[in-house]
Amino acid sequence: MLKQVQHDDTTLSIFILFMNSIIGYFSTKFGELWDKDLSDLMFDALDGVLKKIKLEKSAIDAIFFGNMLGGVVEEKLLLEAHIAEVLGVNIPIYRVEAACASGGLAFQMAHEYLKNNSNKTVVVLGAEKMTDISAENITKSLACAASSDEQAVGLTFPGVYAMIAKLYLQKFHYKEEHLAAISVKNHAHAVLNENAHFRRYVTVDDVLESPYVAYPLKVLDSSPISDGAAALVLTNRKLVIGNQKSSQILSSEVATDCISIAKRERLDELKATKIAGEKAFKISGLKRSDISVMEVHDCFSIAEILALEDLGFWKKGEGGKHAKSMSTAAESGGNLIVNTSGGLKAAGHPVGGTGIKQIGEIHLQLTEQAGERQVRKAKYGLAHNVGGSGGLAVVSILGV
Amino acid sequence: MLKQVQHDDTTLSIFILFMNSIIGYFSTKFGELWDKDLSDLMFDALDGVLKKIKLEKSAIDAIFFGNMLGGVVEEKLLLEAHIAEVLGVNIPIYRVEAACASGGLAFQMAHEYLKNNSNKTVVVLGAEKMTDISAENITKSLACAASSDEQAVGLTFPGVYAMIAKLYLQKFHYKEEHLAAISVKNHAHAVLNENAHFRRYVTVDDVLESPYVAYPLKVLDSSPISDGAAALVLTNRKLVIGNQKSSQILSSEVATDCISIAKRERLDELKATKIAGEKAFKISGLKRSDISVMEVHDCFSIAEILALEDLGFWKKGEGGKHAKSMSTAAESGGNLIVNTSGGLKAAGHPVGGTGIKQIGEIHLQLTEQAGERQVRKAKYGLAHNVGGSGGLAVVSILGV
Repeated sequence: MLKQVQHDDTTLSIFILFMNSIIGYFSTKFGELWDKDLSDLMFDALDGVLKKIKLEKSAIDAIFFGNMLGGVVEEKLLLEAHIAEVLGVNIPIYRVEAACASGGLAFQMAHEYLKNNSNKTVVVLGAEKMTDISAENITKSLACAASSDEQAVGLTFPGVYAMIAKLYLQKFHYKEEHLAAISVKNHAHAVLNENAHFRRYVTVDDVLESPYVAYPLKVLDSSPISDGAAALVLTNRKLVIGNQKSSQILSSEVATDCISIAKRERLDELKATKIAGEKAFKISGLKRSDISVMEVHDCFSIAEILALEDLGFWKKGEGGKHAKSMSTAAESGGNLIVNTSGGLKAAGHPVGGTGIKQIGEIHLQLTEQAGERQVRKAKYGLAHNVGGSGGLAVVSILGV
Repeated sequence: MLKQVQHDDTTLSIFILFMNSIIGYFSTKFGELWDKDLSDLMFDALDGVLKKIKLEKSAIDAIFFGNMLGGVVEEKLLLEAHIAEVLGVNIPIYRVEAACASGGLAFQMAHEYLKNNSNKTVVVLGAEKMTDISAENITKSLACAASSDEQAVGLTFPGVYAMIAKLYLQKFHYKEEHLAAISVKNHAHAVLNENAHFRRYVTVDDVLESPYVAYPLKVLDSSPISDGAAALVLTNRKLVIGNQKSSQILSSEVATDCISIAKRERLDELKATKIAGEKAFKISGLKRSDISVMEVHDCFSIAEILALEDLGFWKKGEGGKHAKSMSTAAESGGNLIVNTSGGLKAAGHPVGGTGIKQIGEIHLQLTEQAGERQVRKAKYGLAHNVGGSGGLAVVSILGV
């Protein structure tokens, strides 16, 4: 799997011992799911993934759960015990919160856990229920992940990313249509995703004509408020892998940064993404050109451009040009296809679920289970999940 | 350290490789700290522990943070990035939430992390700010860790533990004075703890005459609402241990249970405590009689009795008798002293901070740094942290 191990028997044996595989993925539909509460969504994803790969719950050794707003929106904390109750288990369960990166961080923790514990099988769950409160209140709840100063002046996330977008467009001489191309591409991808929140095409004109949320970002530059849950089964137990279609986790790394954008050195990059990305590539032993499919955190159109630059795929400042060229669209037939799920923009963004869905999408693509949206044979893929305005980022690389 | 390793060189070498030591502990005062917000408390504990052992922040590889109510009470989520900002670091930081066991679970995660990663130094932080909202609202916020059904009928935690206490007293023929003895002991211990919320003696009559919160539990059977933070430094890097007074982590285990008490098999025991305790003892290789000091989760007086029984120190149903005998009080000079810090009852209960303070107290006792409240030389100690009404429990065993 890793190039450097091929000429080193010791390293090879250690690697095989610690090989962590993804053997199952299930996602609920993402969207405004009025008939489901948080517990329903959690249970649907857990039950779905276990049934899909016919795994007994007694085979699960631990569960890692990413959720941002259980306490704030749904008055539900200690969700570990909710899971223990619905599954009827007494195993270790961990709820981790890192805003919109809660799912990615839960996955990263699960990978760490498996590196330490051989012969184990774990579930990683991400879920969020967001539509049971008013738009104003959910915006305020999400803003809990902004700094106290940003909250005090009413600077919520559309505003934060709008400031970044404005700077980017000015500094590198782009127009709003360069951003719009990201949404056009991701909406086109989501048409083929049966679980996506929005399954319809939009044009550059649609995006440009949609109302401003915070200049220069418009409604169609922005990911929606969604309900949804997703779950993965990870194992390093050979017997469990069996005949399941599996992908391998080559690396999963997390980095953090100041919560206040005012205290960062630069506004046109996310340092946490850069650091986590560098580490993830180093550990995987791969080059950027090895990656064929990628899910990145496009909470706003500008964020996908920053992601591709900060992860080292595009040179800083050239992202606008690449975005407009649509070179990462499935229909381009290019070497790197980005956000085949539809991304946060069109597949939807139930915050705790997003990081799990990203990994799941890469797993489906690498194991050729992506159905209508399957891109050509891909050997390596990457998932990138961001918390808040970049206070935390997780980058994970998978291979087959 | 472990008995079984003395006749087995291979096991011994593995154990030494993975030896995780606690080398530093700092706690803020616990209490109603009107001039401190959550960020202040977090910073005070982080800064305090680094200064105390003269550790540079650049030596920290990761931070594990336990906090329950940051989003609900203080509108602060993504607290990983708050920590990154105040410390000026970009390292992996994890916020974990498991209600009142958030601190213990963060510690358990840190121990897992160090087992996997050699030559690492990590900080475990626990903090909670609880007194900035009304008593009614904090009770409602804490009840987020009860099941939805319990919340719907207004059954908050004093009520849940009162039902358990009533059953226990009836089933095993005890009186309220048997419960009261726990509070009397823990208040006496807290008089010697400079960071305790309440530093005053109470008598059995004081407890019995205090107003009922939920029959048969009274104000003086109940832990208070406190602000506070505590931090530990853990390492498996020999150079970092240096001349620091250190204790070793022999085991740290977590177990879960149904969130609804109505769905449990028994009400007079906490199954999560029993399972976590059995595992922790098995891994440590110790017997119950090896433990000399212990911090248990006495959120209400009845909870300390259940803890000693469920951890296998007292036979089920005999706890009332042992409690009344005060055999676990420091002044008894007995073989097992419980809650030398004053416990949750008298040292205070800033929920995220509690689990860290418990481990810290055992560390101080084992390394003979407990000052006035130092008990006779102790070789092994245990800490026991519970989430909600027993939906999750963490049991950790330390040694020197």
